[in-house]
Amino acid sequence: MIRKLIEKIKQTNAPIVVGLDPMMKFIPEEISSQAFKKYGETLEGAAEAIWQFNKGIIDSICDIVPAVKPQVAMYEQFGIEGMKAYDRTIKYSQEKGLIVIGDVKRGDIGSTSAAYAAGHLGKVSVGSKSYSAFNEDFITVNPYLGTDGIKPFVDVCKEERKGLFILVKTSNPSSGEFQDRLIDGRPLYEWVGEKVAEWGADCMDGEYSEIGAVVGATYPEMGKVLRKIMPKSFILVPGYGAQGGKGADLVHFFHEDGLGAIVNSSRGIIAAYQQEKYQGMSFADAARAAVIDMREDIAGALQNR
Amino acid sequence: MIRKLIEKIKQTNAPIVVGLDPMMKFIPEEISSQAFKKYGETLEGAAEAIWQFNKGIIDSICDIVPAVKPQVAMYEQFGIEGMKAYDRTIKYSQEKGLIVIGDVKRGDIGSTSAAYAAGHLGKVSVGSKSYSAFNEDFITVNPYLGTDGIKPFVDVCKEERKGLFILVKTSNPSSGEFQDRLIDGRPLYEWVGEKVAEWGADCMDGEYSEIGAVVGATYPEMGKVLRKIMPKSFILVPGYGAQGGKGADLVHFFHEDGLGAIVNSSRGIIAAYQQEKYQGMSFADAARAAVIDMREDIAGALQNR
Repeated sequence: MIRKLIEKIKQTNAPIVVGLDPMMKFIPEEISSQAFKKYGETLEGAAEAIWQFNKGIIDSICDIVPAVKPQVAMYEQFGIEGMKAYDRTIKYSQEKGLIVIGDVKRGDIGSTSAAYAAGHLGKVSVGSKSYSAFNEDFITVNPYLGTDGIKPFVDVCKEERKGLFILVKTSNPSSGEFQDRLIDGRPLYEWVGEKVAEWGADCMDGEYSEIGAVVGATYPEMGKVLRKIMPKSFILVPGYGAQGGKGADLVHFFHEDGLGAIVNSSRGIIAAYQQEKYQGMSFADAARAAVIDMREDIAGALQNR
Repeated sequence: MIRKLIEKIKQTNAPIVVGLDPMMKFIPEEISSQAFKKYGETLEGAAEAIWQFNKGIIDSICDIVPAVKPQVAMYEQFGIEGMKAYDRTIKYSQEKGLIVIGDVKRGDIGSTSAAYAAGHLGKVSVGSKSYSAFNEDFITVNPYLGTDGIKPFVDVCKEERKGLFILVKTSNPSSGEFQDRLIDGRPLYEWVGEKVAEWGADCMDGEYSEIGAVVGATYPEMGKVLRKIMPKSFILVPGYGAQGGKGADLVHFFHEDGLGAIVNSSRGIIAAYQQEKYQGMSFADAARAAVIDMREDIAGALQNR
């Protein structure tokens, strides 16, 4: 799957993933009011608004980006109805040719991780039949439980040719509280990064491993070190835009050939219409314009590295 | 909510939570075949089997334990239909007077954790209305992202009088890979434990904090230390039974007064009917007998401490 992602990055010239985090405050009033007219101010109504909003975004950006990253929490908060919208968003994105990175940050002990892996990336058995439930192409995973919590995900990736992005250094302000603590002179995130490289070593798909890492755009110096520690792991970089990461910060996450990282922007794209810069545009047009601006920002930074 | 949990522990004399992890291999053939007859070998059929199995367990143990802990992965793997069974299991358990600990191990950056907290413990706004989606009483949470990833959960707990169990030292074999690494001479799990105590300090409900911790029964010596580091935090102890933890190992997790911990058993109870010891009993009767045996094992160990 990582090879397919790289092909699509080259085709679109956009190492960009659009974060589909449809908080209600990002959804234009005309969309939510229409959904509420149909289903009332209910969980079903919220899910319908989310779905219509996502569909508009996906239709508008599917030919210029390789991938989308729905953040499951934004759907899960609306219960079953929200999860239906999550499921529908995955399927529709894939129909439109997009690769889907499910931002689920799951992780547990072995047998439980195996169930998550089956439900999100693999197949689950029911009697003599088997089914793919959510069927994302990649998911994000939390490493706190160590190898036996990660291994079942890696095994499913090998079997199904899917991929992971494992949290190494997250983009949030207090990520350093544990992740930066020094162990034998090196921060925890470096030890986690080494494990990511190790876990991914026998799960290669072309030049890169199916097992990638999450490293926040907000910590470019750490990205530089981690790029070297995990040379074969693609890095998913959140934190661009709204969280403070800039194009110039991103160069460290990429290899010299301009590959090796994919940068996420969520509200910076899906809620671009709320920015002064894109005023007067529809939410869908603004999202497309924001992708193009982001693509130029990254390309410029990579040229001037 | 922790006060309510403690009351129920005292009433039942059972510091026990029954893990509702309905893997298909635990479900008696007569239940799954009936479900498949009705819905086919489909995700819906699997969800029906899970639900009927859970209902049997809940009916059989609801008067002798304070709480159940559904492991969401075992439902999520069956997609939307599985999540419906998860939701139904929560609601039914609560109707039967049980406290529900949703074993979801969520955790993310601030705004995303806020969405998880709303969906699992709090309320989500839809226009002028608000809804509780999954509405567990407690959930488990992963601390890898630090304070700003945990704070939104704590805030919702304060508001809604709900609780958390934050992963500190997990029960799995490779939990030590990161959790045991020494930082300034002390293992990471102790630093996480200190943070749990800190996060919980202003979220008290009687003698204990709403903010508890997860510490595996498989690491009793570490439990002893953590019991002191987090004196006001209840400890949820997985790993008893199938994972190798014994009654005698558990005493360290409890305070001298016999409170302060609640021990989980999943397959040891719900699949007890598959053990030689309970042969010939129905799955529901075997589950009840296994709870009673576990209660005696723990009580004996606490008396002989």
